[in-house]
Amino acid sequence: MSGSTIGTLFRVTTFGESHGPAIGCIVDGCPPGLELSESDIQPELDRRRPGTSRHVTQRQEEDRVEILSGVFEGRTTGTPIGLLIRNTDQRSKDYANLLDTFRPGHADYTYHHKYGRRDPRGGGRASARLTAPAVGAAAIARKWLKAVHGTTFVGHMSQIGEIAIPFEGLEHVGRNPFFAANVGDIARIEAYVDALRRDGDSCGARIDVIARGVPVGLGEPLYDKLDADIAYAMMGINAVKGVEIGAGFGSVAQRGSTHGDELTPEGFASNNAGGVLGGISTGQDITVSIAIKPTSSIRSPRRSIDLEGRATTVETFGRHDPCVGIRATPIAEAMLALVVMDHALRHRAQCGDVRVAMAPIAAGRP
Amino acid sequence: MSGSTIGTLFRVTTFGESHGPAIGCIVDGCPPGLELSESDIQPELDRRRPGTSRHVTQRQEEDRVEILSGVFEGRTTGTPIGLLIRNTDQRSKDYANLLDTFRPGHADYTYHHKYGRRDPRGGGRASARLTAPAVGAAAIARKWLKAVHGTTFVGHMSQIGEIAIPFEGLEHVGRNPFFAANVGDIARIEAYVDALRRDGDSCGARIDVIARGVPVGLGEPLYDKLDADIAYAMMGINAVKGVEIGAGFGSVAQRGSTHGDELTPEGFASNNAGGVLGGISTGQDITVSIAIKPTSSIRSPRRSIDLEGRATTVETFGRHDPCVGIRATPIAEAMLALVVMDHALRHRAQCGDVRVAMAPIAAGRP
Amino acid sequence: MSGSTIGTLFRVTTFGESHGPAIGCIVDGCPPGLELSESDIQPELDRRRPGTSRHVTQRQEEDRVEILSGVFEGRTTGTPIGLLIRNTDQRSKDYANLLDTFRPGHADYTYHHKYGRRDPRGGGRASARLTAPAVGAAAIARKWLKAVHGTTFVGHMSQIGEIAIPFEGLEHVGRNPFFAANVGDIARIEAYVDALRRDGDSCGARIDVIARGVPVGLGEPLYDKLDADIAYAMMGINAVKGVEIGAGFGSVAQRGSTHGDELTPEGFASNNAGGVLGGISTGQDITVSIAIKPTSSIRSPRRSIDLEGRATTVETFGRHDPCVGIRATPIAEAMLALVVMDHALRHRAQCGDVRVAMAPIAAGRP
Amino acid sequence: MSGSTIGTLFRVTTFGESHGPAIGCIVDGCPPGLELSESDIQPELDRRRPGTSRHVTQRQEEDRVEILSGVFEGRTTGTPIGLLIRNTDQRSKDYANLLDTFRPGHADYTYHHKYGRRDPRGGGRASARLTAPAVGAAAIARKWLKAVHGTTFVGHMSQIGEIAIPFEGLEHVGRNPFFAANVGDIARIEAYVDALRRDGDSCGARIDVIARGVPVGLGEPLYDKLDADIAYAMMGINAVKGVEIGAGFGSVAQRGSTHGDELTPEGFASNNAGGVLGGISTGQDITVSIAIKPTSSIRSPRRSIDLEGRATTVETFGRHDPCVGIRATPIAEAMLALVVMDHALRHRAQCGDVRVAMAPIAAGRP
Repeated sequence: MSGSTIGTLFRVTTFGESHGPAIGCIVDGCPPGLELSESDIQPELDRRRPGTSRHVTQRQEEDRVEILSGVFEGRTTGTPIGLLIRNTDQRSKDYANLLDTFRPGHADYTYHHKYGRRDPRGGGRASARLTAPAVGAAAIARKWLKAVHGTTFVGHMSQIGEIAIPFEGLEHVGRNPFFAANVGDIARIEAYVDALRRDGDSCGARIDVIARGVPVGLGEPLYDKLDADIAYAMMGINAVKGVEIGAGFGSVAQRGSTHGDELTPEGFASNNAGGVLGGISTGQDITVSIAIKPTSSIRSPRRSIDLEGRATTVETFGRHDPCVGIRATPIAEAMLALVVMDHALRHRAQCGDVRVAMAPIAAGRP
Repeated sequence: MSGSTIGTLFRVTTFGESHGPAIGCIVDGCPPGLELSESDIQPELDRRRPGTSRHVTQRQEEDRVEILSGVFEGRTTGTPIGLLIRNTDQRSKDYANLLDTFRPGHADYTYHHKYGRRDPRGGGRASARLTAPAVGAAAIARKWLKAVHGTTFVGHMSQIGEIAIPFEGLEHVGRNPFFAANVGDIARIEAYVDALRRDGDSCGARIDVIARGVPVGLGEPLYDKLDADIAYAMMGINAVKGVEIGAGFGSVAQRGSTHGDELTPEGFASNNAGGVLGGISTGQDITVSIAIKPTSSIRSPRRSIDLEGRATTVETFGRHDPCVGIRATPIAEAMLALVVMDHALRHRAQCGDVRVAMAPIAAGRP
Repeated sequence: MSGSTIGTLFRVTTFGESHGPAIGCIVDGCPPGLELSESDIQPELDRRRPGTSRHVTQRQEEDRVEILSGVFEGRTTGTPIGLLIRNTDQRSKDYANLLDTFRPGHADYTYHHKYGRRDPRGGGRASARLTAPAVGAAAIARKWLKAVHGTTFVGHMSQIGEIAIPFEGLEHVGRNPFFAANVGDIARIEAYVDALRRDGDSCGARIDVIARGVPVGLGEPLYDKLDADIAYAMMGINAVKGVEIGAGFGSVAQRGSTHGDELTPEGFASNNAGGVLGGISTGQDITVSIAIKPTSSIRSPRRSIDLEGRATTVETFGRHDPCVGIRATPIAEAMLALVVMDHALRHRAQCGDVRVAMAPIAAGRP
Repeated sequence: MSGSTIGTLFRVTTFGESHGPAIGCIVDGCPPGLELSESDIQPELDRRRPGTSRHVTQRQEEDRVEILSGVFEGRTTGTPIGLLIRNTDQRSKDYANLLDTFRPGHADYTYHHKYGRRDPRGGGRASARLTAPAVGAAAIARKWLKAVHGTTFVGHMSQIGEIAIPFEGLEHVGRNPFFAANVGDIARIEAYVDALRRDGDSCGARIDVIARGVPVGLGEPLYDKLDADIAYAMMGINAVKGVEIGAGFGSVAQRGSTHGDELTPEGFASNNAGGVLGGISTGQDITVSIAIKPTSSIRSPRRSIDLEGRATTVETFGRHDPCVGIRATPIAEAMLALVVMDHALRHRAQCGDVRVAMAPIAAGRP
């Protein structure tokens, strides 16, 4: 199995290569009756689209989404929703000679050995462009979750390369090209990225994502824990090398007397758990951080080998983000939304008639 | 779905609660013809067993495994392998009054709200004891992988609480109670843990795990990437709050010119990728790190609430590890082995007849 | 994958061979809060147990079920329910020389070529004994479905060999060894079966199963239709060679003006659909018929080959049912219950908040 | 879950409604390196296309397939293959008033109660048109199976309404509009169907399908038996009410001494098993029969109810097949091919290194 499906009940199956005729997905299992049109999906695609600032690739991917099925008279019918995005900007000549060697940090070598062949145009299926269908699918999940549970998703970049980005407020996120929750440091970040681009180099990033208003009780004890499925979804994003929930790696050096979030009549006293205990949501914010590696496509020449195993040099031209993390925030939000949506349906399946006398305590966002 | 299954082709489904009659699992999809008896499995269970040093819980869980099916005349038949471990040490009186409140850091609160009830005996299904069936199942995977591909798995603790544990050599791992790849710092670690226990507190740990001899080509491009499935499996271990592959969070501050592992005729020049590119194994070591939170069960009193939402205090007695990470190394190895095994079969299914002219380059372990 | 799991949300995974140490299953996804003990399950196992009349094998399989997990203080907790049945009567000497040849009609030949080996004791995993865990799991499903939806399952034998068994009334089913809904023809059937046994031969049977009180709306349009999943479950029973829903093969010669069940304010005017339209339940009785082939183990000598491909003769001794269909009724009921249960949860997951103004019409059982 | 996926390793997920913008599917898990273009797929779609004779609906569905992904330079890459078929003939005015009532024999009533709404245009997702994507996907499976295993699939109509169609030879199947393996009775069948159409009525059909050259060993013992998965796939075809393997319902009246296929050095002496024993292929022909109910859309007025539950009358106009079974043969072949393909990959995953000394015996097609 190529494993191109994410989700058990809210299932998203994608297809497509960066420079083939089209990319897209099938969203299976969406509850019926949800108002839905392209205008609900397109804005999310536009948030991750390249070409929006000088700091990201200048490829013009229009990413115009078309709903092919599953909607009748403006509402979902409960049948699969087909989403189609035609590829319009296919300058495949940029990539013509890439079949003779393997770009360091790319999937060229592994695809070659797994499949015996690969589609080199724009990275083929390994391209970050393949996150677009998931972002589209997640727009549907987000709309349903907000309407039914009041759940929302927000992310921001908290570090780029060596520069930590202090959190100032979520209101800033949409107003700068980095999805930074910050206004004071933007000029410094821009200068940093400009310098990288001049150097023909790249850097990594750290993205924080939060789900708010998640109902208590989502997730399964073993193995499909909510946090396990989040880790799967996040590590599945291109270039991600690390995932944390709550205190994450910081919890290694914590004491139990600090880490364990106390409960009070007013709510949880802290959120080191990141909103998940025993694989099940607590009702607090679900807080996730991911590490994104530096863009592998850089102008500087790199050592590699050719198909006969002889030493060669790879130089990458074309249009590439100096930091692939710059556009990763909406993608991370999307993947988190897909997981929460799936577990919302799973929970209803098994526990739809559970009644608990005690009300959930306040989320506690200290 | 309770989601108690891990794996697509090598499928492990577990059952059991810490203090119920038994725990166990069904291993479905094991290739036929593998020599197998309890003596292949028991040693792995013994490695994670409590009661082996003063630094871990003194519970006497014998963890005696019985093979119930799938083996005939000493070899696997290809049919499901049932593994059964009877629970022998069930001092459930220790946990009698725990249904009235919620222990901070535990799954009590989330189980209560999800299911409307819970089994409080020894943490029920949320107990770390439930890692035993997976360790047993992984012993089978490890034997097959070693025989067919020469793949081995080894892990060690690299940090406990505030103490980083320098890597000295893997030969030390089995000779100290912490699974440390170190001999010089053991006394200091013991003193640290003794002090924690006296304080009635606990700490976290960082575990590094490595898979060696993994064939190139395992994993699926999207979404069932090898690293995504590893993240899922690792985050699914009790108390894990973070997962890294290769350079992990360190890659955020790296440059692309550093991070991207160059290829040479002699092999990869580095392994920042941690053995996975584009979701597919490179043939290098797969390197994984996990963060384990401090044990939630500590003697110090903590604030909580009762079933009516009124403030109360929780004190935990009984037998608990001051650092749940101490026994986590064999568990992390096991989860990694389950993922690699599953993908070895998946790869054979789809690509069993792929022939690549070029030989894989040396793994490159600089 | 060995594929030993049935169900998507109410998942039953089995293990075991006829004459190994034990058989059993894990039932994952059961809603919490259901009162459950062994006494809910044992009676269903007893219905399919051999040795209850002279017309079935005299093997003494006690089939004593033990609940290993998932139940606390008499109610399900929502975690996996482990069911264990120890094998007690293991006269494996009866089967000692069966590895040298292949019994016609049995799975010997196919197991040998698939796996390169097989467990010959009592048919190994291909034994009808392996229906016991599913019957046990289905007892749980039946209890939940009856409590929540009022759904019940009942089956009866409608033909044995050449003898059609006229339907007289369901009250007769439990009062004769054939599960016949008939009292007048029992003596004739007994004579028929006695003659078969004397001849060292066997015959087939037809079983009809009905689910009553199934809510309207269960099933998915494509491909997991309710009737498709029923066909899968039924064809998965040992020895089944055909499955019909509603009018079944009789619909070939029907006219559309007859077959299409008209709707009236009083209910459906007929039930040629067998309770399923477009893969979704109508609220009418779900009616299923299955064809069971003659028992393959017969005393008469049969031609076969040995492991070198040379002609040989197989004679079967030991204890065998002259008609394996005699005990199939509770099994067929069980499989139907598992499918309906799974779809009840699936439907709640996706459509749990659908409200339809129109009340379902009466089931219409004309 | 809407369950719109068939297959475990060769996975086909469909989307689309009869009169929406498009229908299609994603084929995930296809082995890499297979030569593939639209010209491999289009002929199979053309075989099931309406409008090809006066005996089927005169709708002009061009069913022009486009490959959107998964193919590079004329060969499959191992990544998902997207297939798109635009809907061109959308005379939705024919169906405008159908939302007020429920057509007998159709899915209108069940969709309404399940989802609270439905797409009435051309039957929406319940339309037989939705078999086209599966036929397209199966064309890929058929090409691979033929190339790798020499497996082929052929079907024919063996009964239409009351008329049994004697088998004369497969060479006739492609030369008449009914897929009959017969040349002598075609005129009689045409007259029969013409009369039905004049009466405004419809009839059912029986289709036989055979898979030849299936390797021995495909299928899983429990529950994903080859025959169970075939039953699932066949019952999932629109209008199918019954499925038989091998002797099917005829086995009820057989003796064991007749039914059990003897093995000889020259091959199996018969094929009552229909090529499957214990859920695993024997290497003989896999023989399947299905019952197709009469077309539900007939001109004759039928009783029904409106949304308020009041009695009303339904008359169907528009363009409909008098026997939906006329076009079912290529669909049944396709579904059988999908199941065999999936199990070919599954078998290789688990048993790819099994070596059996004994050669399979001849298929034996007496």
